[in-house]
Amino acid sequence: MKEQKHILSILVDNQPGVLSRIVGLFSGRGYNIDSLCVAETTEPHVSRVTMVTEGDALILEQIKKQLNKLINIIKVSDLTDQDTVVREMVLVKVTAKAEHRAEILRVTDIFRGSVVDVGQEHYTIMATGNAEKMSALLNLLKPYGIREIARTGSIALARDLKVK
Amino acid sequence: MKEQKHILSILVDNQPGVLSRIVGLFSGRGYNIDSLCVAETTEPHVSRVTMVTEGDALILEQIKKQLNKLINIIKVSDLTDQDTVVREMVLVKVTAKAEHRAEILRVTDIFRGSVVDVGQEHYTIMATGNAEKMSALLNLLKPYGIREIARTGSIALARDLKVK
Repeated sequence: MKEQKHILSILVDNQPGVLSRIVGLFSGRGYNIDSLCVAETTEPHVSRVTMVTEGDALILEQIKKQLNKLINIIKVSDLTDQDTVVREMVLVKVTAKAEHRAEILRVTDIFRGSVVDVGQEHYTIMATGNAEKMSALLNLLKPYGIREIARTGSIALARDLKVK
Repeated sequence: MKEQKHILSILVDNQPGVLSRIVGLFSGRGYNIDSLCVAETTEPHVSRVTMVTEGDALILEQIKKQLNKLINIIKVSDLTDQDTVVREMVLVKVTAKAEHRAEILRVTDIFRGSVVDVGQEHYTIMATGNAEKMSALLNLLKPYGIREIARTGSIALARDLKVK
């Protein structure tokens, strides 16, 4: 079966239980969620859930139909095949011995990241980009010793249709 | 009852169903989740869940105890009273009429954001910071017309204990 990455963007009423029902629909079918972000929008009581999943397209179609039937769900958008801006953010605490600091800062600079905390023997670096870019950054930092990492997972907005 | 913001950071085995059980513990008690991020770490099959909640501290204590009992949960850290680096990311699509563009770009610049997509009549802006900073940015952009917004919610890493 063909498995591909899907990005779903779901507007929901910000009520306890909504997220649980959404996530339950996926886990009930053994459908893994790679990443998930939930946060408020500018509308009071409306939150946006952005979800990256990988799996069979047919099952996802069924899940989407069920999502649309749930109360408190305002809108389900599948951004998978659309032209979108996709970004995630990473916070990574990396061991920074004196002899490695210059190189770590160079890598951070190339990825347009920034050092947001400094300790005796570590830097905490923040960077943004798409998932591939973030993985590339982490691969470059790995040899120095990654102590801790927190990633947001992807968020996405559709680009406007281009006039041809 | 005293309600305050809490930040929980939870390391989990990346199995279908884990997230559903975590979220279910909160919604089962009517405890609202303000924001939530789930994404992989550098360890294969280990994900980190970062959660911002608001509510009674006693109930949260009970939830934390139950979280610790769940299988597939590796570690629960409460970062609420710790010294942490907290960041979130926002993607916002704002109407940008010709006469407002200079000012929108100025605001974006001040917040160290960047324009990641441009259309005939809109900019999509990406920015990072803590929740207060992001709200301030959105308030400044609001008068121009916010068309769409996606926020990641907060992620956090503890700072190292400072040597006194």
